[in-house]
Amino acid sequence: MTPEPLIPNRLDDEHDALVILDQTLLPARIVYRSLYSTEEICRAIQTLQVRGAPAIGVAAGYGAYLAAKYAMQSKREDFFASFYGACDALAASRPTAVNLFWALNRMRTCAAGHGNEPVSEIVAALRREAENIHREDIAQNLAISEHGLALLRPGDGILTHCNAGPIATSRYGTALGPILLGQERGYGFRVFADETRPLLQGARLTAFELQRAGVDVTLICDNMASAVMKNGWVQAVLVGCDRVAANGDAANKIGTSGVAILARHYGIPFYVCGPTSTVDLDTPTGERIPIEQRDPEEIRSLWYEKPMAPAGCKIYNPAFDVTDHSLIAGIVTEKGVARPPFTQSLRAMLEK
Amino acid sequence: MTPEPLIPNRLDDEHDALVILDQTLLPARIVYRSLYSTEEICRAIQTLQVRGAPAIGVAAGYGAYLAAKYAMQSKREDFFASFYGACDALAASRPTAVNLFWALNRMRTCAAGHGNEPVSEIVAALRREAENIHREDIAQNLAISEHGLALLRPGDGILTHCNAGPIATSRYGTALGPILLGQERGYGFRVFADETRPLLQGARLTAFELQRAGVDVTLICDNMASAVMKNGWVQAVLVGCDRVAANGDAANKIGTSGVAILARHYGIPFYVCGPTSTVDLDTPTGERIPIEQRDPEEIRSLWYEKPMAPAGCKIYNPAFDVTDHSLIAGIVTEKGVARPPFTQSLRAMLEK
Repeated sequence: MTPEPLIPNRLDDEHDALVILDQTLLPARIVYRSLYSTEEICRAIQTLQVRGAPAIGVAAGYGAYLAAKYAMQSKREDFFASFYGACDALAASRPTAVNLFWALNRMRTCAAGHGNEPVSEIVAALRREAENIHREDIAQNLAISEHGLALLRPGDGILTHCNAGPIATSRYGTALGPILLGQERGYGFRVFADETRPLLQGARLTAFELQRAGVDVTLICDNMASAVMKNGWVQAVLVGCDRVAANGDAANKIGTSGVAILARHYGIPFYVCGPTSTVDLDTPTGERIPIEQRDPEEIRSLWYEKPMAPAGCKIYNPAFDVTDHSLIAGIVTEKGVARPPFTQSLRAMLEK
Repeated sequence: MTPEPLIPNRLDDEHDALVILDQTLLPARIVYRSLYSTEEICRAIQTLQVRGAPAIGVAAGYGAYLAAKYAMQSKREDFFASFYGACDALAASRPTAVNLFWALNRMRTCAAGHGNEPVSEIVAALRREAENIHREDIAQNLAISEHGLALLRPGDGILTHCNAGPIATSRYGTALGPILLGQERGYGFRVFADETRPLLQGARLTAFELQRAGVDVTLICDNMASAVMKNGWVQAVLVGCDRVAANGDAANKIGTSGVAILARHYGIPFYVCGPTSTVDLDTPTGERIPIEQRDPEEIRSLWYEKPMAPAGCKIYNPAFDVTDHSLIAGIVTEKGVARPPFTQSLRAMLEK
């Protein structure tokens, strides 16, 4: 029996709420939370209750719609101030994933496009736009899954880092999409999931999602990827992405660049999977992607019974790193697989 | 004020005990335990209360001596059976670090060399041999520290993995020896310590030891090493070793091979530090080094408030990996720095 799918974002329009799956409690507990304000949605994004670049984009879209709805009874100028203020607050919740800004730009553009209509019409248009973002993400993830699966062979060993599965998106997933689609079609993949310190998205989310879907998954610590590759167990690496620069440099969960270097060393193709909304042609190279620095306590004491590092010890805790385009064999989007040189292929793909 | 040094192994001959620092409780608590039997010593090695290849060798030496002492009142043939049985039990406690077997071979050879003497004389000789192993390790670590320091420049950023410091040895440390010696001499190193999952020796032990010594140390998750190197913060990598094969392939804590690949990618020299007792010319290549597999619960639930991976999830948990000799710039022993090609340089070094 296939377990019910987990839904990272769902609009509860009747109660003016965004319902999110609290991903910080997985795999121990499946808890949905209703969020009733922009502040609550921002906090859910900051604390990673909602996470994954595409899922953050969807949450931001609904958040912007709900902010407009909350302000419907205001005077017209206050309505716009509330709406744009909420968009700014949502945009400030996390700095790296570009889908957040992309979704909010769509919402702002939608509001501006209906700017001369009655507020109720604007709100209705914003709802449609947020739902479109959500619906498109589902369709894009399915297309990514197909394009990614075409790169793989039955029985392949696949290594993945962090979590780019159904709960990081709207359905199917980006990096996990091809794996789950292959599972439905009897590909018999063997998957190695990096646990992904410090927040353990690989252990808590990826291993959980793949095991739930019946995939043969083995959990490893991040530092075991080299040994697993050396053993000949990995034929492809699939990861998600939070922002892809115009030259193909890809920001993703911290540690991704190291996995890419290992894959290159062992001659294993390394694929980045994400919707074209993650490609940011306005960011020329990875050096220009802002990298979020997070609380040292995530490393020192989060999850633990007691602090596991000495008090006062300096800690460096970047949430993302940038994988150089030269290490990437292909960028899998809903429009196909972009190949090097990415400066040309990504631009051509986005203009399709 | 310099804090008192931590002593991983100390013979308490009056009470027929080996006193060990329980390294599983660091950094929260500094607890010494007296062990009164071969079984207790084996268990302390298996559970990593005593750990680090050189420190395991010293513990095994004292363990073999104490086993002989415990059996002093036995009939002569029972005495030998007890002694050799204890050596076998100690040898079976962990499979990868060769210092364990090396130290036990010295103890067996010592017993055999005094085989015609009264039991009390044999026991006295074994005590001297165990103390020699301990004393030599201290001297060797000091020499390793000097040779390693000569490879470094003031202000260098140094990355290390796992723990090869004073408590992994008898004093000074192997990989941390040059750092601590440099600290005494005002080198002003900036050190990055990989936390080293799953057992967190980098967070619990390396960051703790370096911070205690006043070294500028920054703790990172294993998967952040690539980002730190890319930032230009690392000028050399120093790691310890559990066994070096005749061709220079080096077994060390899981993840070391990945760090070596990253160092190669970023053009950073990668040095392996250890006494020549860690070099095993009887093991031709790294493929022949047995790799200990440990309990999956170390990854799933150890240290945590609750299990952080789904129940029943497959987990791969090798304790070590092998770094290919081609990735190693030098092997730093008490006799100097062996350079490639290691098949020649190591053999010449051991014959010195």
